[in-house]
Amino acid sequence: MKNYLVHDEWKIIEDNFHPTFNKISESVFSIGNGRMGQRANFEEDFTGECLQGSYVAGVYYPDKTKVGWWKIGYPEYFAKVLNAANWIGIRVAFDGEILDLAKCELESFQRVLDMKRGVLERSFVAKMVSGRKVKVESSRFCSLADDEIGAIRYSITPLDFSTVLAVTPYIDADVKNEDSNYDEKFWDEVYTEVGRQDGFVIAETKKTAFQVCTGMKFKLVKNEEDLYFDTHPVKEEKKVSCTVDVDMEEGETLTVFKYAANISTLNSPADQLLADCKTATDRAFEQGFEALLAAQEQAWAHKWEEADIRIEGDVAAQQGIRFNIFQLYQTYTGADERLNIGPKGFTGEKYGGSTYWDTEAYCLPFYLSTAPSEVARNLLIYRYKQLDKAIENAAKLGFKDGAALYPMVTMTGEECHNEWEITFEEIHRNGAIAYAIYDYIRYTGDQEYMETYGLEVLIAIARFWAQRVHFSKQKNQYVMHGVTGPNEYENNVNNNWYTNYIARWCLQYTLENIAAIKKKTPDAYEALCERIKFYEYTETGEWKKIVENIYLGEDQELGVFVQHEGFLDKDLLKVTDLDPAERPINQHWSWDRILRSVFIKQADVLQGLYFFEDDFDESTIRANFDFYEPRTVHESSLSPCVHVILAAYLGMEEKAYEMYLRTARLDLDDYNNDTEDGCHITSMAGTWMAVVKGFGGVRIKEDQLFLRPFIPKKWAAYSFKIQFRGSVVEVKVDQSQVEVVNLSAIDLQVQLFDKKVPLNSGSTIVEKMNQ
Amino acid sequence: MKNYLVHDEWKIIEDNFHPTFNKISESVFSIGNGRMGQRANFEEDFTGECLQGSYVAGVYYPDKTKVGWWKIGYPEYFAKVLNAANWIGIRVAFDGEILDLAKCELESFQRVLDMKRGVLERSFVAKMVSGRKVKVESSRFCSLADDEIGAIRYSITPLDFSTVLAVTPYIDADVKNEDSNYDEKFWDEVYTEVGRQDGFVIAETKKTAFQVCTGMKFKLVKNEEDLYFDTHPVKEEKKVSCTVDVDMEEGETLTVFKYAANISTLNSPADQLLADCKTATDRAFEQGFEALLAAQEQAWAHKWEEADIRIEGDVAAQQGIRFNIFQLYQTYTGADERLNIGPKGFTGEKYGGSTYWDTEAYCLPFYLSTAPSEVARNLLIYRYKQLDKAIENAAKLGFKDGAALYPMVTMTGEECHNEWEITFEEIHRNGAIAYAIYDYIRYTGDQEYMETYGLEVLIAIARFWAQRVHFSKQKNQYVMHGVTGPNEYENNVNNNWYTNYIARWCLQYTLENIAAIKKKTPDAYEALCERIKFYEYTETGEWKKIVENIYLGEDQELGVFVQHEGFLDKDLLKVTDLDPAERPINQHWSWDRILRSVFIKQADVLQGLYFFEDDFDESTIRANFDFYEPRTVHESSLSPCVHVILAAYLGMEEKAYEMYLRTARLDLDDYNNDTEDGCHITSMAGTWMAVVKGFGGVRIKEDQLFLRPFIPKKWAAYSFKIQFRGSVVEVKVDQSQVEVVNLSAIDLQVQLFDKKVPLNSGSTIVEKMNQ
Repeated sequence: MKNYLVHDEWKIIEDNFHPTFNKISESVFSIGNGRMGQRANFEEDFTGECLQGSYVAGVYYPDKTKVGWWKIGYPEYFAKVLNAANWIGIRVAFDGEILDLAKCELESFQRVLDMKRGVLERSFVAKMVSGRKVKVESSRFCSLADDEIGAIRYSITPLDFSTVLAVTPYIDADVKNEDSNYDEKFWDEVYTEVGRQDGFVIAETKKTAFQVCTGMKFKLVKNEEDLYFDTHPVKEEKKVSCTVDVDMEEGETLTVFKYAANISTLNSPADQLLADCKTATDRAFEQGFEALLAAQEQAWAHKWEEADIRIEGDVAAQQGIRFNIFQLYQTYTGADERLNIGPKGFTGEKYGGSTYWDTEAYCLPFYLSTAPSEVARNLLIYRYKQLDKAIENAAKLGFKDGAALYPMVTMTGEECHNEWEITFEEIHRNGAIAYAIYDYIRYTGDQEYMETYGLEVLIAIARFWAQRVHFSKQKNQYVMHGVTGPNEYENNVNNNWYTNYIARWCLQYTLENIAAIKKKTPDAYEALCERIKFYEYTETGEWKKIVENIYLGEDQELGVFVQHEGFLDKDLLKVTDLDPAERPINQHWSWDRILRSVFIKQADVLQGLYFFEDDFDESTIRANFDFYEPRTVHESSLSPCVHVILAAYLGMEEKAYEMYLRTARLDLDDYNNDTEDGCHITSMAGTWMAVVKGFGGVRIKEDQLFLRPFIPKKWAAYSFKIQFRGSVVEVKVDQSQVEVVNLSAIDLQVQLFDKKVPLNSGSTIVEKMNQ
Repeated sequence: MKNYLVHDEWKIIEDNFHPTFNKISESVFSIGNGRMGQRANFEEDFTGECLQGSYVAGVYYPDKTKVGWWKIGYPEYFAKVLNAANWIGIRVAFDGEILDLAKCELESFQRVLDMKRGVLERSFVAKMVSGRKVKVESSRFCSLADDEIGAIRYSITPLDFSTVLAVTPYIDADVKNEDSNYDEKFWDEVYTEVGRQDGFVIAETKKTAFQVCTGMKFKLVKNEEDLYFDTHPVKEEKKVSCTVDVDMEEGETLTVFKYAANISTLNSPADQLLADCKTATDRAFEQGFEALLAAQEQAWAHKWEEADIRIEGDVAAQQGIRFNIFQLYQTYTGADERLNIGPKGFTGEKYGGSTYWDTEAYCLPFYLSTAPSEVARNLLIYRYKQLDKAIENAAKLGFKDGAALYPMVTMTGEECHNEWEITFEEIHRNGAIAYAIYDYIRYTGDQEYMETYGLEVLIAIARFWAQRVHFSKQKNQYVMHGVTGPNEYENNVNNNWYTNYIARWCLQYTLENIAAIKKKTPDAYEALCERIKFYEYTETGEWKKIVENIYLGEDQELGVFVQHEGFLDKDLLKVTDLDPAERPINQHWSWDRILRSVFIKQADVLQGLYFFEDDFDESTIRANFDFYEPRTVHESSLSPCVHVILAAYLGMEEKAYEMYLRTARLDLDDYNNDTEDGCHITSMAGTWMAVVKGFGGVRIKEDQLFLRPFIPKKWAAYSFKIQFRGSVVEVKVDQSQVEVVNLSAIDLQVQLFDKKVPLNSGSTIVEKMNQ
C-alpha cells in the first residue's frame, strides 16, 4: 500500500517526483477517450523506470501461446493488447545536453490528472548534470469530443542560461510489448512521411495485419509569438522526427503545440489511412489547443453530469470513486459495438484480451445506469456477434449441436486463455453472458432485444449446460463435474453450487423466453428454430428434467449452500487464523496449499446470492454471508464490491464500509502492489456498484426503481444519478434524510424503503433515514 | 501400429529402408552401455528425417522453465538429457559427390540390431544421383566391457566406378537438442585438437559446466591391407575432422576403423580429460576392432546368462521380451550410484530428467532379480543421497520439520516438473520410494540397509504424510485433499484410495522399523534422532492416530474401493462404450472431457492391490479388477503390466495374455505412435515383470521364493532365471510341467503352487501344470 498521492476531490496529484513509483504513476495518471489511450509516460526522454504504453482500441496481436505442457483444446494464441506508436514524444536538448529527468536534480515537480477536465498536466524545475536549470510545463489530453485526436502543449524555459534549444517532436512505432511471449516486436513498417512540421508513420501488425497511421503536426511559440522555423526532418525505421534549433535567451519560453492522430483500418480503408490521418491532424492544428481543450472540458462536463457520484466529508472516498468513474469512461464510451472493456483498459498491457466475464458481471450495471441504453446494448451485441465463435469454442471441447461456450478471455470471440482449469472449467462465465441479457432487459424494458438477439444466445448457452451436466445414478440427480467456480482458489471441483445454480437458471430462463416469444412472434420463432436447427420438443424436454432435478449442495446443520462437494471436509479456518505475514496467500503459498485451504479468493456462493437475491430470504443470505465471508481473502479486485452490496443489504453497515475501502482506492493506493502493470479497470465498476447498489440500495423490482439507502457514519452526505428507462433520477443521502429527485420529463413511481411513491417529472420526495 | 520389422529371436531387422519410419528405427536400433548411448543415426551424411542423438550418462542441462502462467512452487528449470558430441560421423564423398541416403536409390538395405552380441549393423547398395553404385557395410557398438569406448567398422566399395574417395571421420559437438525451450545450443567449446589420425573436442555445458572430452582415433584398410595415408585435418567451432583422399578402383573396398571415447568431468578431473580420452582412444586403437568386439560379445553373453527370458513357440514374443531386457541393460548397468533410469534411456531426448517413480515401482524388481543386489542397492542409495533435496522440495511447498517430498522428475534431486496437478499433487511417488526400500529388503534380506540408510528416508517421508493429511471434523477421520493418483486422468481429487493407502502403509512401516531398530541398535538410533531432530514420542503419536483413522473409501454395494471421492458419481461407462475412432482418448479429447470421464489411464486402486496383494483376499482383488480394468484405457505404457500380474493371479489367463501383448512389443510395433521420440525404457521393466511375476507367479513369501506359474496357450514353453539372496534359480515352464532348478551352491526352500519344497544346490524339482 502506497500513500504518496495528494487527496483532492477532482484531481490526482503527485507532488515531488517519486521515481520508484513512476510505473504506478504512469498507470494511475493514464488518459484515454475510448478509442485510444496511453500511460502517463513523459514527453521528453526518460531513462528511468518506465513502461511505455500507447494503445489503439481493437488493435491487437495474437501472440503464440506459451505453455509448459500442451493439452488438447488449448488455443494457438493469446490476443495481446498492443503497445502502439508513441505520439507524445518530444526530445529536448540544450546545446546537445538531452533533458532526462532520470539524470536531473528536481527543484520542484508536480503531476496532476484533472479528472473534471480530462487533462494530464505536469510541471517541474530541473537542474541538469551541467548545473543549468530548466522549467517545463506540459498539458495533454486525448480528445473525448474528437476521438481520433490527442493534443499536447509543452513549454520549456531555460531559467539561468542562454542556449541553442533543439526540440524534436516525433512519432515512433518501433515499440515493443514487455510481455511478448517470444520477445518479438509486433509491428512492421508500411510507410513513413515527414515534412517541415508534420510526420506520419503507417505500421502494420504482424499476423493480424491491422494498419494504423499515427501522425503529428506541430507549431512553436516563443514568448507567446508564433515562431517561424526550419526543421531537420529525419526518417528512421518505423519513426519520423523533426528537429528544430531555437536560440533562447535566459528566461525565454518556447512552447511546442503538438497535435496527433491515430487512424486504424478498423475505421478507415487502408488506402485512406494517410489521408484521413492528415485530415485529423490538420483539423486539430486548425482548431488549436485552446479550442480543443474547451471541447474536451465540455465533453467531460457532460459525462460528469450523467455519471458523477458526490461524497461529502470524505475527500479520499470522493477522489476514489471519481477516479474509478473517470477511468471507466476513458476506457469504454459505448460508441462502438466491436469494442469492449479490457481488464487494464489503456493503462497497461498485462492480461491482454479485451473481454472477460467482468464486462457482464461488473461493468454492465454501471453503463446501464449512467449512460443511454445503447451503450449497454452495444456490450450485449458484442457477444451476440461472437456467438459463432463461442459455438466453435465449445466444439473444440467436444460439445455439439450448436452448444456455445463463451471464452474466458477474448478479442474476437476465440478463446485465448491456456490454463485447463480456467479455459475448460471456469464455465460459469457462460451464465454471466445469459444473466447480462436478463439484467439489460429488466433494467431497460427492451423486450425486443430478446426476440432479435437474446434468445438465440440463450438457446446456445442452454444447449451447453444440458450437455455439460450428466445424470448420476448414485445421486439420482443431474450433476456437473470438473468445474472451477468464480473462486479460482478451487480447481476441478464437482457440483460447484454457483455454477449449478446459474446453469439451472439459464435453462429455466431460456424455457420461459421460448414460451413467451413463441406466443408473441411465432413466425420469427419458427424461423429461428429452422436456422439454428433447434428441435424444441426434444431439447427442452431434457432441459426441464435438469431444471427439476439438478444437484445443489446444502448443509442443513450449518444452514448454508455448499460451495462444492467436499468443501465442508476442509479444515474450516477463518481469515483471522492466518498469519498476516503470509498474506496475500497468492504471493506466499504454493498452489496446492491454496487449493487445499478453505480460503476463498472472491465471492462464489455469495456471487449467486447477489445475482439471485430475490430467490432467497434474508436469513438464508445472512447465514451464507456469515459462513463464507470470514473465509474470503478478497485477493481478486472483483471480490469486495459484491460483499459491500450483500453486507449493506443485511444491514451490516460497518462490514459494508470496511469492504468498500478495499475497493475504492485500490489503484490510487496500490493496495495489491500491482498497479504498475496498469489499473484494475473492470473492478472500478464494482466500486460504483458498491455505492449505488450497496449504500444506495438500488434495485429494479416490478419494473420500478427500488431504493433502500444507508450512509456510512464517516460521510456527511453522498449523491448519485441514475438513468432508468429514459428518466434521470438523482438520489441525495445525508445522515438524516434521503432526497430523490426526478430530473426528467417522465413521471415515475419508485419504491423507497419498500414504500411505493409517485415521483413525477421534476418532483422530489424526501424520507427520513434509519428506516 | 507399425509392422515393418522382421520377427527374429535374437535380432531386430529392418529389411529395405523405410525413410518415413527412420526416426522410429533410430530409436529402436539404439545402442548403449550404461555410460553412453546413441540413437541409430547413420555414420555418413543424411539429410532425411532424423533425430540426431548421442548421450553421456549423468550429463544434463537445466533448461529454463517454460510455462504459461507461473505458480508459486514451480521449479526454475527442467533438467534435459543432453544431446552430446556426435562421435560416429564419417563423411563419404566420391569425386566430391557426398554419400547421402536421402538422395540415393537403394538397391538393398538392411539394418540389424544383434541383441545377443550388442552390435548394430547396416549394409546397403545405393545408386547415387550420378548413377554410380556404392556398397557400404557398417558395424558398431558401445563397449559394455570398457564403457568409455565405442567402435565402428565402416566399409565402402565403389561397385561400378573408379574414383577419388574422400573419407572424413569427425567429432562434432556443435549439436542441439530439438526440444530446447528457448532454441539455444547447450554446449560451449573448451578445446579442440586434431592430428593425422585422431581428434579431440572438449565441450562444456552451459550453466552446469560439465565438460566432456570426445575423441577419435582411426585407421584405414584398403582391400584388407593397412593403408598409409595423409590427412587434411580441420578445426571448426566445436568440431574436428580429418579428410583422407584415397584412389579407388572399381570393386575395391576401403574400411574405416574408427574408435571413439567419451570422458566427462563426472569421472575425470577437468585437467585430465584430454589425457584420459587419449588413453582411451589409444587403448581401443591398440586392441583393435575384433578384440573389442570379442569382449563385447562376452560381456553381453554374461548379461544374457543372467537375465534372459526364453519363449518357445512365439517368435514375436521372444523378440519383444529380449528387446526389452536388452534396452534396460543398455540404459542402466548399476555400476554407478549417481545414475538412474531415464524414461527414454539413451534413445531420445524427450521428457528429460533421469528419474521418475518408474524406477522404484517398475524397474527395481527387474534389477533385483537379474543382477547382484548391489545394482538394486545403488538405485536406493541414489534416492538416499537426494534426501536433502527432497526435504528442500517439500519446504518450498510449505512443509516443515524435515518432511521430504521426492520429486516427480529429477536429475539431482531437485524437482523439474512444472504442472501443478503433477508437481504438487502427484505425491503418491513418495510412497513408491518407501515401498522400494521394503521391496529391496524383503527380496535381499539386507536388514542392515534399513539401519544405515532406509530409516532416515522413511522418517522424512512419514513426516510428509503426517503434514499432508488433515483431520476432517465432518468425517471424524483423517483425509487427504488435492492429490493426483497414478491415474493422471484425474487431477486434484480428494481421498485418492491408493494415495491414502500407501501413506498409511508408509507410516505403519516406519513405526515398525523405528521399534525394531531402537531395540537392535539403540545408540545408532539415538544418534539418528539427534541428527534429524526427530522427536519420536510427539511425532509417532500423531502417526499412530492417522494409521488408525485415515479415510479409505469403499463402496459396500459394489464391493470395491473407491478410486477417489466422487468417482462413483460419474457416468460409469466402460471402454467398450468408446468409439474406437476416438482412441487413444488423450489424442482426441480435450482435457476436461478426459477428467470428467470415468476412463482410467493406468492402474490406480489396482496399483495398490498389486503392491499390497497380501493385505487382500482374492475375492476383493477380483471385484476391484472386474470393476476398474474394463474402465481402463491403458494409455500409459506402465499400465498393462500391472494388469497382467493381477489377471494372472486371478487365473484370468486370456486377459493376462491380452494385456501382455500390449506391453511386450510397444516400441517394436510403435503401438502408441511415439517411438520416434525414443523407446519407453522404464515400461520395459514392466514387461519383464509381466512374465516373471505375472506368468511365472513369482513372489517372496516368508523369506522364500514363491512360484505359481501358468503358461499362455500360444506358447510351447518359457523359462527365466532369478537371482535370490545369492542363489540362482531357473524356472522352465511348458504346457505340461514346471521345472525349477537350483543352479547355485546354496540350498533353498521354495514354495511351488503353495507347497513348500526343498531345492538344494544343483537339484531340480518338477511339478505338473494346471494346479
